[in-house]
Amino acid sequence: MKRIGMLTSGGDCQALNAAMRGVVKTLYNSGEEVEIFGFLEGYKGLIYSNFRMLTGKDFSGILTKGGTILGSSRTPFKTIEEPDENGVDKVEAMVHNYHKLGLDCMVILGGNGTHKTANLLRTKGLNVVTLPKTIDNDLWGTDMTFGFQSAVDIATNVIDCIHTTADSHRRVFIVEVMGHKAGWLTLNAGMASGADIILIPEIPYDIDKVVDAINKRNKSGSGFTIIAVAEGAISKEDAALSKKEYKKKLKKRTVPSVSYEVAAAITKKTGMEVRVTVPGHMQRGGSPCPYDRVFASRLGSEAGKLILNNEYGFMVGYKNREVVKVPLEDVAGKLKNVDPNATIVQEAKLLGICFGD
Amino acid sequence: MKRIGMLTSGGDCQALNAAMRGVVKTLYNSGEEVEIFGFLEGYKGLIYSNFRMLTGKDFSGILTKGGTILGSSRTPFKTIEEPDENGVDKVEAMVHNYHKLGLDCMVILGGNGTHKTANLLRTKGLNVVTLPKTIDNDLWGTDMTFGFQSAVDIATNVIDCIHTTADSHRRVFIVEVMGHKAGWLTLNAGMASGADIILIPEIPYDIDKVVDAINKRNKSGSGFTIIAVAEGAISKEDAALSKKEYKKKLKKRTVPSVSYEVAAAITKKTGMEVRVTVPGHMQRGGSPCPYDRVFASRLGSEAGKLILNNEYGFMVGYKNREVVKVPLEDVAGKLKNVDPNATIVQEAKLLGICFGD
Amino acid sequence: MKRIGMLTSGGDCQALNAAMRGVVKTLYNSGEEVEIFGFLEGYKGLIYSNFRMLTGKDFSGILTKGGTILGSSRTPFKTIEEPDENGVDKVEAMVHNYHKLGLDCMVILGGNGTHKTANLLRTKGLNVVTLPKTIDNDLWGTDMTFGFQSAVDIATNVIDCIHTTADSHRRVFIVEVMGHKAGWLTLNAGMASGADIILIPEIPYDIDKVVDAINKRNKSGSGFTIIAVAEGAISKEDAALSKKEYKKKLKKRTVPSVSYEVAAAITKKTGMEVRVTVPGHMQRGGSPCPYDRVFASRLGSEAGKLILNNEYGFMVGYKNREVVKVPLEDVAGKLKNVDPNATIVQEAKLLGICFGD
Amino acid sequence: MKRIGMLTSGGDCQALNAAMRGVVKTLYNSGEEVEIFGFLEGYKGLIYSNFRMLTGKDFSGILTKGGTILGSSRTPFKTIEEPDENGVDKVEAMVHNYHKLGLDCMVILGGNGTHKTANLLRTKGLNVVTLPKTIDNDLWGTDMTFGFQSAVDIATNVIDCIHTTADSHRRVFIVEVMGHKAGWLTLNAGMASGADIILIPEIPYDIDKVVDAINKRNKSGSGFTIIAVAEGAISKEDAALSKKEYKKKLKKRTVPSVSYEVAAAITKKTGMEVRVTVPGHMQRGGSPCPYDRVFASRLGSEAGKLILNNEYGFMVGYKNREVVKVPLEDVAGKLKNVDPNATIVQEAKLLGICFGD
Repeated sequence: MKRIGMLTSGGDCQALNAAMRGVVKTLYNSGEEVEIFGFLEGYKGLIYSNFRMLTGKDFSGILTKGGTILGSSRTPFKTIEEPDENGVDKVEAMVHNYHKLGLDCMVILGGNGTHKTANLLRTKGLNVVTLPKTIDNDLWGTDMTFGFQSAVDIATNVIDCIHTTADSHRRVFIVEVMGHKAGWLTLNAGMASGADIILIPEIPYDIDKVVDAINKRNKSGSGFTIIAVAEGAISKEDAALSKKEYKKKLKKRTVPSVSYEVAAAITKKTGMEVRVTVPGHMQRGGSPCPYDRVFASRLGSEAGKLILNNEYGFMVGYKNREVVKVPLEDVAGKLKNVDPNATIVQEAKLLGICFGD
Repeated sequence: MKRIGMLTSGGDCQALNAAMRGVVKTLYNSGEEVEIFGFLEGYKGLIYSNFRMLTGKDFSGILTKGGTILGSSRTPFKTIEEPDENGVDKVEAMVHNYHKLGLDCMVILGGNGTHKTANLLRTKGLNVVTLPKTIDNDLWGTDMTFGFQSAVDIATNVIDCIHTTADSHRRVFIVEVMGHKAGWLTLNAGMASGADIILIPEIPYDIDKVVDAINKRNKSGSGFTIIAVAEGAISKEDAALSKKEYKKKLKKRTVPSVSYEVAAAITKKTGMEVRVTVPGHMQRGGSPCPYDRVFASRLGSEAGKLILNNEYGFMVGYKNREVVKVPLEDVAGKLKNVDPNATIVQEAKLLGICFGD
Repeated sequence: MKRIGMLTSGGDCQALNAAMRGVVKTLYNSGEEVEIFGFLEGYKGLIYSNFRMLTGKDFSGILTKGGTILGSSRTPFKTIEEPDENGVDKVEAMVHNYHKLGLDCMVILGGNGTHKTANLLRTKGLNVVTLPKTIDNDLWGTDMTFGFQSAVDIATNVIDCIHTTADSHRRVFIVEVMGHKAGWLTLNAGMASGADIILIPEIPYDIDKVVDAINKRNKSGSGFTIIAVAEGAISKEDAALSKKEYKKKLKKRTVPSVSYEVAAAITKKTGMEVRVTVPGHMQRGGSPCPYDRVFASRLGSEAGKLILNNEYGFMVGYKNREVVKVPLEDVAGKLKNVDPNATIVQEAKLLGICFGD
Repeated sequence: MKRIGMLTSGGDCQALNAAMRGVVKTLYNSGEEVEIFGFLEGYKGLIYSNFRMLTGKDFSGILTKGGTILGSSRTPFKTIEEPDENGVDKVEAMVHNYHKLGLDCMVILGGNGTHKTANLLRTKGLNVVTLPKTIDNDLWGTDMTFGFQSAVDIATNVIDCIHTTADSHRRVFIVEVMGHKAGWLTLNAGMASGADIILIPEIPYDIDKVVDAINKRNKSGSGFTIIAVAEGAISKEDAALSKKEYKKKLKKRTVPSVSYEVAAAITKKTGMEVRVTVPGHMQRGGSPCPYDRVFASRLGSEAGKLILNNEYGFMVGYKNREVVKVPLEDVAGKLKNVDPNATIVQEAKLLGICFGD
């Protein structure tokens, strides 16, 4: 008999439920007797021993359902090691609850911050298996994270809609795409929707290059320009600042995000009307796309297999079209970013896309 | 032989192309010989005689295409009677070009502002037939405008996506829905997506009622609240101001829109995290929904029939499931708003939706 | 306190859950104390007293969910008055169970057949309120049924997809659309997707006219033709047969449906390749479209109001954009078909669509 | 200056236009002067020198458009070497036209059959670059073909719709999925949509195992079963036949496809109602999914680069997330099938999916 804890942490995304279903179905179908403890609202659930016992019924019909049946919360890693407002040591509490409930392992689904904490729990002796969840696709050790392709689909659809109205009105349109400090989502949604300009954190932009590209389009008679701006995009000047100076500058920013800065600069330099669209959290929601459903189910199934083999301390990832296990200590604290010289970026440039560099 | 001018004016929306295709196919299939002059970018095209001759081929394959093949521009009615920067009298220029090209009539597709100008042209002796285009559904004289249902579909999809993430994170989410000064779009998208609170211009909101509704949900264990806020929503205090005072207050507003005001007020009164999503122009874009394609095709076809019968001075509208012709002088300058006591609002309240009143 | 039975009968469709949620939310929010008995799998549940007690939780999150949480079954009216295989008198059993459970009324959601039985129960003294559910839109007494617009959306999407492949291959494509013996679904999906030929039961087709239309398209250089064929479409020859002769002929039919007959005839007369697509039950499934969600919620809410007012014996319908109550005896046994001379058919013909007449 | 011929051959699929746009944009943006000859309707266009000169405008706005702007046709390889009805040697005609037009190379987009002919042209001295297009994903030498993921999305959506109606009616539903003689499409769509049983050509099915799985579901209370059947699925008995015997048997088949055979067998053995849905050519149509748009654009861009480098005789493929060039002689005539022992199949089985083996 195996007693398995499970939690989802950090910003939610599509296919979390599909992944958990994959783990649990694999365990059930193995013939092994299992008990599933579902901790609620991320690490909080483990810290305060807030859980529900889950059965097969809980996992029925959730393959296509967005969000997470366990709820989630952001518990930044830096706060994990601090005591809570009642003086409770959070890490100690998690270790304590794990042992008190007689758990054999924890299945933890999350992104970058989540993996740091998962690795910490591993060093404290807990058996941990993790699954790479994030629309940002910025997790080290895996070619792909689930949620990513679903978010690409949504962001692409937003830009597709904007396309018809941009075409009719000869304006500049900016669509702000999520992705944290990585450009994967913006790069893919931008290429998929035929954006003319793509600004990503990994390639700081020169606003004059952006304006040149707009003017070139206007001269060629296209009349409108669509810009996909990553929420983490940054100008060359800002990229040259020290971290401290940049933070200081951000604090003084009166507009909600970088997209509005870009918009203002374009209007100032061209006199053109610029409209900003911010689909925001929409990009994390809705039913996972078929790609993510298959992908998350597969990873979940492999996590189930690891548990059956008592192999712990791994993230289940995906490398060169093979499901792989990656040691948690290798994953924690590392990010995977777009290489400015990657083939895909070169191809995008050959397709005529301007990156502002 | 008939020589027909055509233009699309104001913010674009879905099914403009479907409507124009409906007009032209009906004329062609009547056996009457016709010439179609497509004026580019709204009234500007007529003022400066900027047009393309259109043939059947131009209308092939555009039934499902968003935007407008003619382009559009906003030419506010109040600027129509003013001369342009070169001293050109715009109305005179339009009348002149109409006669110079030997046109038999103008087919004009637009919303509220567009209809004022269309009616003015009618009083100047031009033969005019109009079609009611707007995602706002605020045109007087017709139960429905095309673009509306497509925009409802998009806004609903946005809130559907937000639903899964809201559910996972126990936050308050605001989705700002378009609709100008009318609440139709927000009301329908909010009802379709199961929004908990709907704020529309026609029902000024009391922020304390909004907060009460949120607290009630929290107590009941739902944990999250979704609010559909019309871009024209207004608080009770602001609604009590004179127009002048309100404009003055708007000028001082530091946040981009009313949604951010509502968000700030909720956070202040409840301490809850509130996220704002602004799908913006996305709501006007993309392929028209099947409802709008059929609807716009039907109205277009009826406009074609009016032209074949030499009946001018009408908007083709829809009343009680019948296509009707409405005199332009009755339409121009009037708005159709949501009646706060309408059956649909009562039903929404019975379904548990809070309007903040 | 009110004890309310509820059942869904006949082929399922989208927005059944939305409608039931509308009824129940309205009852709960009225302050009246209510108990909801959910009978399972249609009339069978009432006959054999197979039910679940439902609470608010059962109706949470189902607004967007396809199918019916109660399950359904087809219990043809003609079998209702016959005893079952154990000699049980079904009508008597339903009346008996209704009284035994102390029900105040039954809310019954269904189409044409369902309404005959509902009316029969009314004549036996039961308090009945019904809601018009069917993708066929063929219920008498209401302009619209829920499920219809969702099915139009799906069938349109199918034809949209076929369009791109037809265009590339210069073939004739037939898409078989549901709708039972009414042409509403085919007519609307055909118009929405730009079908070239639409064959519906109400307008028997002459295959030579169909072939003429195809040849005309080929000559004009279009090269491909898309035909939307209603599952109930019928040729002129077959329509001229007596009911008995037609049934006899159907029995001898070796192809699965009328579409294949049309396909074979076209190939025989033109030598062209014809491909048949049958989306089938897909048209009843998936999440209801926003239109249906609002519409079904409204009807449900009005049914709730009738119950609160103790007004029974009605179907809640929709006439001229007003929610209305229609006496059950007027609805039962009547069908609403497309009038071959309706304005919408004339408009479709002006748009160039051939109906084979 | 480069003169480049281009053609699309075989069954069309999504993202053909995106791929061609990728080639042409890359060539244009390289600064090299190019002339694009678009041969119409596949190899036929090259055989009979039927082409259009294409310019940048032809490739604008087609990234999201299904089908192919060049048209396509199936010209089976075995007929390529036979003379046409006028005695024209097709291969000779193609070689002749290639030289007569002074072409520098041919860009050929197609699937398995297309590649055999492309390789033949290579052996005749033509410079050829190919792109792997097929919804079947059965091309050797590449992990992925464009069109595949779009078709997965559509087939998944069909099964999703069926799911809600199956659930309400407690029936067995079969959805017949395309894929020719490969199971990729069915496997992925089946896993993505939570199908209970998946039958693919690579794993011949035992109908008794299928019936067992249905009975097991019925006993567990699920009540309905969804079966994804590949159009090329085959029973164990049929797989044991010689090719000749099997062909003979197929000729005698009275039902349209294998799905109907499976349906009949299930009804016979269980008495359950089985419904068959055949989405057919829908799976090749509509706008390409974002994944395919990016993927096809990338491959197209790489084909452009090969041309600029005068590297010919290759298919541009995708291996281990890298774009690669594969010698045409290696690709031609080989198929890539699902390995019955592949990890993904094992995972699917652990998820509880029955393959009938």
